[in-house]
Amino acid sequence: MTYSISILPGDGIGVEVIDATRPLLDDAANAGGFDVETTRYDWGSERYLEAGSMMPDDAIETLEPCDAILLGAVGHPEIPDHVTLRGMMLPIRKAFDQQVCKRPSVLFDGVESPLRGYDGGDIDFVVYRENTEGEYADAGGHEHRGYPHEVAVQTAVYTRKGTETVVRAAFEEARSREGRLTNVTKSNAQAHGMVFWDRIVEEVSSEYPDVTVERLLVDAASMDLVRRPEEFDVLVASNLFGDILTDIGAIVSGSMGMAPSANINVEGHSPSMFEPVHGSAPDIAGRGIANPLATVLSVSMLFDHLGESEVARDIRRAVESQLADETAPRTPDLGGSSTTETVVEDIRTRL
Amino acid sequence: MTYSISILPGDGIGVEVIDATRPLLDDAANAGGFDVETTRYDWGSERYLEAGSMMPDDAIETLEPCDAILLGAVGHPEIPDHVTLRGMMLPIRKAFDQQVCKRPSVLFDGVESPLRGYDGGDIDFVVYRENTEGEYADAGGHEHRGYPHEVAVQTAVYTRKGTETVVRAAFEEARSREGRLTNVTKSNAQAHGMVFWDRIVEEVSSEYPDVTVERLLVDAASMDLVRRPEEFDVLVASNLFGDILTDIGAIVSGSMGMAPSANINVEGHSPSMFEPVHGSAPDIAGRGIANPLATVLSVSMLFDHLGESEVARDIRRAVESQLADETAPRTPDLGGSSTTETVVEDIRTRL
Ligand SMILES: CC(C)[C@H](C(=O)O)[C@@H](O)C(=O)O
Ligand SMILES: CC(C)[C@H](C(=O)O)[C@@H](O)C(=O)O
Repeated sequence: MTYSISILPGDGIGVEVIDATRPLLDDAANAGGFDVETTRYDWGSERYLEAGSMMPDDAIETLEPCDAILLGAVGHPEIPDHVTLRGMMLPIRKAFDQQVCKRPSVLFDGVESPLRGYDGGDIDFVVYRENTEGEYADAGGHEHRGYPHEVAVQTAVYTRKGTETVVRAAFEEARSREGRLTNVTKSNAQAHGMVFWDRIVEEVSSEYPDVTVERLLVDAASMDLVRRPEEFDVLVASNLFGDILTDIGAIVSGSMGMAPSANINVEGHSPSMFEPVHGSAPDIAGRGIANPLATVLSVSMLFDHLGESEVARDIRRAVESQLADETAPRTPDLGGSSTTETVVEDIRTRL
Repeated sequence: MTYSISILPGDGIGVEVIDATRPLLDDAANAGGFDVETTRYDWGSERYLEAGSMMPDDAIETLEPCDAILLGAVGHPEIPDHVTLRGMMLPIRKAFDQQVCKRPSVLFDGVESPLRGYDGGDIDFVVYRENTEGEYADAGGHEHRGYPHEVAVQTAVYTRKGTETVVRAAFEEARSREGRLTNVTKSNAQAHGMVFWDRIVEEVSSEYPDVTVERLLVDAASMDLVRRPEEFDVLVASNLFGDILTDIGAIVSGSMGMAPSANINVEGHSPSMFEPVHGSAPDIAGRGIANPLATVLSVSMLFDHLGESEVARDIRRAVESQLADETAPRTPDLGGSSTTETVVEDIRTRL
């Protein structure tokens, strides 16, 4: 068995965490008795500054045949974010119909939460985020530029297909966990898109009588992830709301530097993409101190998706064992002073 | 001088906190040497269940001549939120062009934050939220109900007038505080509405060279209110983003039960409205244990808006003194076991 994996380091610390984590793929292959064939693409902001585009014209065709994509981060201090993101990360999520974004939030043993009274093991939930449409739809415009009556509009688009897909995936996940799903919307203020979303959740819920559904408004949910994070099991939300909830989830679990994610093509006709939730972090880029654990855990999700669940579990356990070990190396975001490389080396010895 | 104040208790604990706080208005009048004339309107969900509408047809004309409105909360467990809110709270914000919503987040001495290492005095920021349009615009619809190609759209509308008004108010506030403004958008994913918003902020900023502007994406800002709340001074955001940020602000400052708000008509041609940020809380309604401090602090903001800044300050100091006093009564959300009434009585003796 050979898996072909496309590697897109991207920008800033994306390059650092991806290049440091790269050897782990071979370790995993050795341990799991399969082969991994990687191709690294130097796409991103440097390319944009030189050639005028983040990726070549045939980027999507190039990536299409691979089994999975590992992405670092995209973003450059001198280029507007909507140019970099719309030039690279977002078009991949859309082109490969990666409608489901899965983002776990776990407070590991040995990690301190910024929340009083929470210890390792106390927080363990996962957010299912719609990933290709909703509030991120490229729909809108603006008129009367510079005049007093100037107006801009931004239209969110929710399809039955997109909504049902992520909602169903979330119900499946809830069924395999504690059977509790929290549906996060803003139906009191957004009577068109969000009331539709609620209806889809209600429809799908009839197929999952074993799953309990709680409804929360996004403002209350954002507050509750701080107030009672231990009570959540699976959350499902739109693209924008999922984006916000997963950043809060990352911080209450200790650090953005440990939050992994999977952008999943559910039908399997195109590759899925795995990436740390953190961005390119220009403020710390170039110093070799970025936390690689979000990427290591994303690699674990990647192998899980490919069906190599034992390898996935072993990588996750290596992370758990490192974090629980007070003498193990840690990057500065976790209160240590180790480098990205050192942390990955230590993970490799634990594998 | 006589101020005429309209009182709208609304639903659930809204009625409890408003009725308990009512005598404070007379105390304030006595202390400040002015008169207060109140009219109480029994509008809300009970009326909806009996008469089919939350407010009478001429509600807006009835309220128009008053100097200020004090609102409790709106929402009923048996009526969809978009019916109650669109029937009462949201139309008042819109009809009276209350474009600026001001919501302070203060961690008072004597209150415990859920965040490790934060003590009274450590958190003190204020969010300026656009309050009449944006993501709450009643624009959108849906087609092909029940078919596989069903689609719903929800359109956010940002006018130059609405955006400039709240942005300018936020710059003014920043100038009167520490001179730091954080502009929260999601321009990397919403290239129409949010890029327009950023441009307005940039334009207005040229009139305020003494104010430093920081830009944050809403996901990062939500995280940063947990990670580094002490660093914020003034934040400005759209309707939806302001809604989310202020709920996070309320919880990191100790409790939703202490978060006040002002919905301000900047031109002064119509009344402004003052309300606690919490909702009708059906889960604790009827037990007399709701925290009245959010309403007390909203009354303080009301008098400040009317130009009675000494009275406003005195009410605020009474709250500070109560919270700093370990022997003073507290409601259950603050770890005590006192009633709404007792807490207000204690505030009155401190005035
Ligand atoms: C960079 C940005 C467009 C992206 C998003 O909002 O999806 C990021 O915040 C994320 O969560 O992956
Ligand atoms: C009840 C709801 C419509 C309202 C809002 O989102 O504006 C509330 O959450 C608030 O913050 O005042």
